[in-house]
Amino acid sequence: MNIESGLSFREATIEDLPALVALFADDVVGGHNDTTDIAALPIYQSAFAAIQNSPNDLIFVGIMSGEIVATAQVTFVTSLVGRGSKRMIIEAVQTRADMRGKGIGGLLITHCLKIGQERGANSAQLTSNNQRQDAHRFYERLGFKKSHAGFKLNLQAGPAST
Amino acid sequence: MNIESGLSFREATIEDLPALVALFADDVVGGHNDTTDIAALPIYQSAFAAIQNSPNDLIFVGIMSGEIVATAQVTFVTSLVGRGSKRMIIEAVQTRADMRGKGIGGLLITHCLKIGQERGANSAQLTSNNQRQDAHRFYERLGFKKSHAGFKLNLQAGPAST
Repeated sequence: MNIESGLSFREATIEDLPALVALFADDVVGGHNDTTDIAALPIYQSAFAAIQNSPNDLIFVGIMSGEIVATAQVTFVTSLVGRGSKRMIIEAVQTRADMRGKGIGGLLITHCLKIGQERGANSAQLTSNNQRQDAHRFYERLGFKKSHAGFKLNLQAGPAST
Repeated sequence: MNIESGLSFREATIEDLPALVALFADDVVGGHNDTTDIAALPIYQSAFAAIQNSPNDLIFVGIMSGEIVATAQVTFVTSLVGRGSKRMIIEAVQTRADMRGKGIGGLLITHCLKIGQERGANSAQLTSNNQRQDAHRFYERLGFKKSHAGFKLNLQAGPAST
């Protein structure tokens, strides 16, 4: 099957939520503790509603043969820096495990960038776990520059005292 | 002067804009082309309004002796990943050149993290240019882990074709 002709993108709807959760639950690198356990569904429903209510956030899904095979979230951030630049942050990027290596992720990111340009974003940015060297090469092939380091701090443990 | 007793934080107002722009115009590493030229002020005013109108964005300023000596922007992003986690992204962090090395930045970031926790953020994240090794050590001292790589793509030049 020709991926490009069989793949389409649209914004996610609440009906997509179980399939989206399954994509994240299948990701072992991030260690984000996602689960398809039905008991957790209300938490995801609440998060989905928060994302839909945000004027600056979009979730995209990639569809093949009626199934969700990939997803990405985009957040637009206006900043004073760069003469009031508008950035798009791409995160929560995931391709279904059995559909990797087919070019789906590249087409998904390209779709996100196109929407970002239409909305006036000056730049796109994302962080990728240092363990995901394949993903790093993937983003560099798409034209991204690994110009920054990405720092994370778990706040549930409390911030460090200074 | 004891920094901690003389320093206070609050959200930025439109009256702070010229001082904020001056902070960014003074930054040579980022290469963001910021300027205190009065002709550019309307662009910054428009960006400031967009940030104020966003329910997920806050700009903080650090004040000493009535002057703005530091600033940071915080963006809250809810994601499906991590069981509907809420992250805070910190960016546009700047301390006035003549006020660096006094601990102001650390107190500012700690203030941002405290606000983030109050708003239910599970984690904080930021990217820092690879040229800013001093900043990298600064964030590590605050408890951040350099676990990710940060990728950027200029969209004004157009996304790379895949």
